[in-house]
Amino acid sequence: MRPASLRALALAVGILTLAACAGRRPLDPRTAVYPPPRLPEIEVQGGRLDPGGAEWFWVEDHDVPLIRLYLAVRGGEVYDPPELAGLARVASLAWRTGGAGDLGPEEFDRALENRGMDLSVHLGRDKGWITLTVLPEDLDRGLDLLAKLLWEPALRADRVDWAKAQVAEALRREADEPQSLGFREMRRALFRGHPRGRVPTEETVGRIGRDDLVALHRRLVSEGTWALGAVGDFEPEALRERLAARFGRLPGRGGAFPLLTPPAEPQPTVVIVPKALPQTTVIWARIGPERLSEDFAALEVCDHVLGSGGFTARLVREIRSNRGLAYSVGSFYQALPRFGVLGAYGLTKTESAGDVVDLMRAEIRNLADGITAAEVEEARRSLVTRHVFRYDDPANLVRDRLENLLDGLPLDLGERYPDEVAAVTLEAARRAARRHLDPARGVWVLVGDLDPADPRWGRMGAVEVVTPGE
Amino acid sequence: MRPASLRALALAVGILTLAACAGRRPLDPRTAVYPPPRLPEIEVQGGRLDPGGAEWFWVEDHDVPLIRLYLAVRGGEVYDPPELAGLARVASLAWRTGGAGDLGPEEFDRALENRGMDLSVHLGRDKGWITLTVLPEDLDRGLDLLAKLLWEPALRADRVDWAKAQVAEALRREADEPQSLGFREMRRALFRGHPRGRVPTEETVGRIGRDDLVALHRRLVSEGTWALGAVGDFEPEALRERLAARFGRLPGRGGAFPLLTPPAEPQPTVVIVPKALPQTTVIWARIGPERLSEDFAALEVCDHVLGSGGFTARLVREIRSNRGLAYSVGSFYQALPRFGVLGAYGLTKTESAGDVVDLMRAEIRNLADGITAAEVEEARRSLVTRHVFRYDDPANLVRDRLENLLDGLPLDLGERYPDEVAAVTLEAARRAARRHLDPARGVWVLVGDLDPADPRWGRMGAVEVVTPGE
Repeated sequence: MRPASLRALALAVGILTLAACAGRRPLDPRTAVYPPPRLPEIEVQGGRLDPGGAEWFWVEDHDVPLIRLYLAVRGGEVYDPPELAGLARVASLAWRTGGAGDLGPEEFDRALENRGMDLSVHLGRDKGWITLTVLPEDLDRGLDLLAKLLWEPALRADRVDWAKAQVAEALRREADEPQSLGFREMRRALFRGHPRGRVPTEETVGRIGRDDLVALHRRLVSEGTWALGAVGDFEPEALRERLAARFGRLPGRGGAFPLLTPPAEPQPTVVIVPKALPQTTVIWARIGPERLSEDFAALEVCDHVLGSGGFTARLVREIRSNRGLAYSVGSFYQALPRFGVLGAYGLTKTESAGDVVDLMRAEIRNLADGITAAEVEEARRSLVTRHVFRYDDPANLVRDRLENLLDGLPLDLGERYPDEVAAVTLEAARRAARRHLDPARGVWVLVGDLDPADPRWGRMGAVEVVTPGE
Repeated sequence: MRPASLRALALAVGILTLAACAGRRPLDPRTAVYPPPRLPEIEVQGGRLDPGGAEWFWVEDHDVPLIRLYLAVRGGEVYDPPELAGLARVASLAWRTGGAGDLGPEEFDRALENRGMDLSVHLGRDKGWITLTVLPEDLDRGLDLLAKLLWEPALRADRVDWAKAQVAEALRREADEPQSLGFREMRRALFRGHPRGRVPTEETVGRIGRDDLVALHRRLVSEGTWALGAVGDFEPEALRERLAARFGRLPGRGGAFPLLTPPAEPQPTVVIVPKALPQTTVIWARIGPERLSEDFAALEVCDHVLGSGGFTARLVREIRSNRGLAYSVGSFYQALPRFGVLGAYGLTKTESAGDVVDLMRAEIRNLADGITAAEVEEARRSLVTRHVFRYDDPANLVRDRLENLLDGLPLDLGERYPDEVAAVTLEAARRAARRHLDPARGVWVLVGDLDPADPRWGRMGAVEVVTPGE
């Protein structure tokens, strides 16, 4: 076994000292600071490509002869003009596949695949990612193609039409898939009047033209906030020079894609999406605390105990294991820069939908009073261990850095996480549960063969019926 | 950049020598041996836990303080008694979640989650995997739980009933999901009368009792072929001792789960699965060459050119990119120990289903004459590069070793792959395509709102209509 890192040693010594001070009594789980597992000794390096130039982060890893490059940019679906919702999705497809510079679409694909390279473009919810994977000996060729794609994409009209058809098709399929449909309607209801709640339709996608993609591309490469990441088998200074030569002239921070402001939480609402299916999808969601909130770590613990923590999580144990009512059940908490989203979901036979809703409400409501010191301790330990898993692929660490930078968050949140979680007390978990886990707030979405007039829905909030596929 | 490995150097020297011999003429792509990328210097170690004991394979990797253990066993769905099809699936769920030894289900879960450990059981098509992930300091605790689970699972009747309900529910959902349904019916039609073609139904699952799980467990731990794997932050000799103490007394190779014999290829068949959906799923499949066949590598290349190779693959380019007919399209080739499965698939609007079938047939049929030297070269390069990706997680290498051992295949197939692929000539690819890529053979499965009496289906084979959900 390798020697513990300095950091882990320091932590261990701290814990032992605490225990010694306590006169060798067993640690009280309600107050004990659980010794977190040592974090791996993988360090992400950071710097600028040129003085005043773009920032980049890297991990050297010579185990496998591959280089993975990440170009991250602020921008994505939430910045689509409302009347053109779907623009970022269309661009994701048309940008990469339309050729670039002097290379037509097929020539561009062949130039990549001829060397086994992988180059992809994905504009997500609020960030775009261009990723390149190459063998070290193909680095220059790969960077040339990446530069062409970045600065001179063809965005050919025929590829735009093709991409629009693909996106429209995906929207139709989404409407056929109860869980996708449920989460889409959850977003629409929870973020009403907020960019995150905008959902593309066939109509908005139909309006998109090549000019819109050209304008989006111009904004992405000239105003957004960019950063680069690299993982793998390279020599940093040589790579920095190459990146600086091609991407060093990135513009500074722009204001074109500002961080989203927190949405107002909607009035309690029950959205019924009628679907003739034997299964009903149940989703509850509300606005939650942001990443830097004092409740962040405590809510991570609560979420773990409620439904994210595997077999022993309360929703799973009570609804799935003990009663066999749900095929799938759990909870979620996603902390964004200025707000978060939290909730729970279950998938059940339609005749059990009411029971599952009642059980979910009870488990959510009871957490504040019912959560135990043992559960908090288990959750702390488990969350920290799972965090260690992220280090198993150094690309996760680099991507975390890029996200934090673009989100305006401290870069070292990943390193802070174990201590944040280890410090959560039973009291803090109860407080977070009281503040945030309230099933009477937020939105419920039910996708299935249900009667919207059933009075039990009306008792939970204003009932809305949404017809799928629009 | 780190110095190239000896192996890569030797290859590079070989190539340079060849080029020099050729008098510096450009390499002829029809005959050139393309220089493969160097393989990573990750070596899997192998040995026996005790003299005459079980085999194990390991990769030491101290980057991240985690240990991943794999216990692989021959056995799985294809060995289910026909009247109890689904037994392995039920066992996968009930085994892990039912408690073990002196620990009830909740105690067992808590003992794991209290230390953030992950322990899972998955009985797949022909192999079972029990995996354990622990922090190094929790190794002994984790091994104790693994041993309990292995030798003393409770297999409680109430958990068996719960698992049966879960599996039955999954079967109903599978029938609602056109692609899962399509591949299920493909298996049933392609492997008729063969264990691989058996599909569980609610009826066969309903018949399963606790005794059947007890009997399966007894066969798995007393007759099957077992092996262990380990990846991560451990000292091999110390780990070997611990594993030998708990699992060293594994029985030798048993005959209870023999390798499957190759199935007879069915008469050309068109299976229509009527579903009132706007999309039609099209699948073609036939029996293909085994892993050790002389056609294996050449068919890998053909499959890549036909539909697995990304944007430049023929099916993707012709059907998806150029004509925009398919939302998703591609091909597949899976080489098993004594036979393989190959095929192609497409997902399209129902009104285009006939056109997509015709285009797929044409592209499959035309590959033997149409494949070019440039395509073969690109495929070789790309396949070898993708192979390098597997080395990015050393667990892949250990699992490959375990699979090869259980399948009775040479252990070093992973290391051989680049040379096998690099040696594929245009002639070999054409020969493999002529032998195996014949759309007039095998089965076609169409899931969608189609007229079974349409004469075009009858021209492709015997038409069968299958009602989903049974």
